[in-house]
Amino acid sequence: MKISARNTFSGTVAAVRLGAVNAEVDFTTAGGDNIVAIITNESVQNLALAAGTAAVALVKASSVMVLVEGSGLKLSARNCLSGSVVKLAAGPVSAEVGIALPGGEVVHASITQESVKELGIAVGDTVTAVFKASSVILAVAG
Amino acid sequence: MKISARNTFSGTVAAVRLGAVNAEVDFTTAGGDNIVAIITNESVQNLALAAGTAAVALVKASSVMVLVEGSGLKLSARNCLSGSVVKLAAGPVSAEVGIALPGGEVVHASITQESVKELGIAVGDTVTAVFKASSVILAVAG
Amino acid sequence: MKISARNTFSGTVAAVRLGAVNAEVDFTTAGGDNIVAIITNESVQNLALAAGTAAVALVKASSVMVLVEGSGLKLSARNCLSGSVVKLAAGPVSAEVGIALPGGEVVHASITQESVKELGIAVGDTVTAVFKASSVILAVAG
Repeated sequence: MKISARNTFSGTVAAVRLGAVNAEVDFTTAGGDNIVAIITNESVQNLALAAGTAAVALVKASSVMVLVEGSGLKLSARNCLSGSVVKLAAGPVSAEVGIALPGGEVVHASITQESVKELGIAVGDTVTAVFKASSVILAVAG
Repeated sequence: MKISARNTFSGTVAAVRLGAVNAEVDFTTAGGDNIVAIITNESVQNLALAAGTAAVALVKASSVMVLVEGSGLKLSARNCLSGSVVKLAAGPVSAEVGIALPGGEVVHASITQESVKELGIAVGDTVTAVFKASSVILAVAG
Repeated sequence: MKISARNTFSGTVAAVRLGAVNAEVDFTTAGGDNIVAIITNESVQNLALAAGTAAVALVKASSVMVLVEGSGLKLSARNCLSGSVVKLAAGPVSAEVGIALPGGEVVHASITQESVKELGIAVGDTVTAVFKASSVILAVAG
């Protein structure tokens, strides 16, 4: 994929629900995870998205949060994908966390290095990648 | 809070307005600040959000901008919280700014180090943390 | 502009379409580029936005992705601005890319340094800055 978004999931549109301005699109990744995207109705039309359309879901790493186990929280964020930390790259301010999902895909999250330390995130931990439906971009072959 | 979002505000839902796909939720923090969140109607249902519900508002530091005094701008961003810069962490590209609100909470913004320099942001300055309603996640005890 | 958002485009509102909660605003930059913004209906009212209103569109660098040529993708992201890479600032984790548009404006994208390497982005390349309509904030003189 020739785009800087660190997270690209190939898969299929499962359902489209149009609203007044925005539409809600259910998407299933090749690895079997469900992703919800909020995009504009106009994009649904431009991309001719419908149940069954092959597409790619893109999520920028900076839109992804990391939730650690035992938080006991229910989140409004529609996308919560659990996996195992397989990579940690630390800078002075920023850090990147790679989270491998059971289906084999790796989700990347750009978070602050201070969060990595405060949460004690380490390779091998089970964590959840969290991102809002409004952070998801859908793409189709042009 | 066991999530990497640098900004977590405990508080109470003040009002919920459902739309076609998205809902607008007014939230009041324990410190007395008002936050507006745009989440999906389905999340309102899943979390059983209504006026009076105790909840937590989460905002990723990368979703927060810093507005300095004297800009004379009115912004479409629904969340503009003024406070005092209490922390500045600089990296080669990224920087983190901590802004203490009058109610005692600290808002963290991840911005570029170049913006810190261009705006001349320093500890002690009065600035405004700005974030869109669509950048807010709401959470309830699960 | 006294705000940390790295991307500020002066221009004029071209059209406003109200929805149930959110509105879609078409905006034309001084450089002649079209930008679509999703903001709340309430912000449209607060800022008195209508066709012809002079305004500024703000986009945080962290909301911008970089698409390189030959991807053959159609994206749901409503804002895709092509230009030439004029600046690359690299940190250990983060990088900032400056993309000059034909109209003279420069769009800044904060992406990971790993993406810069993987995509082989270099000064002089023709690339496309991609951001969602929901990442755009509109501002008017207060």
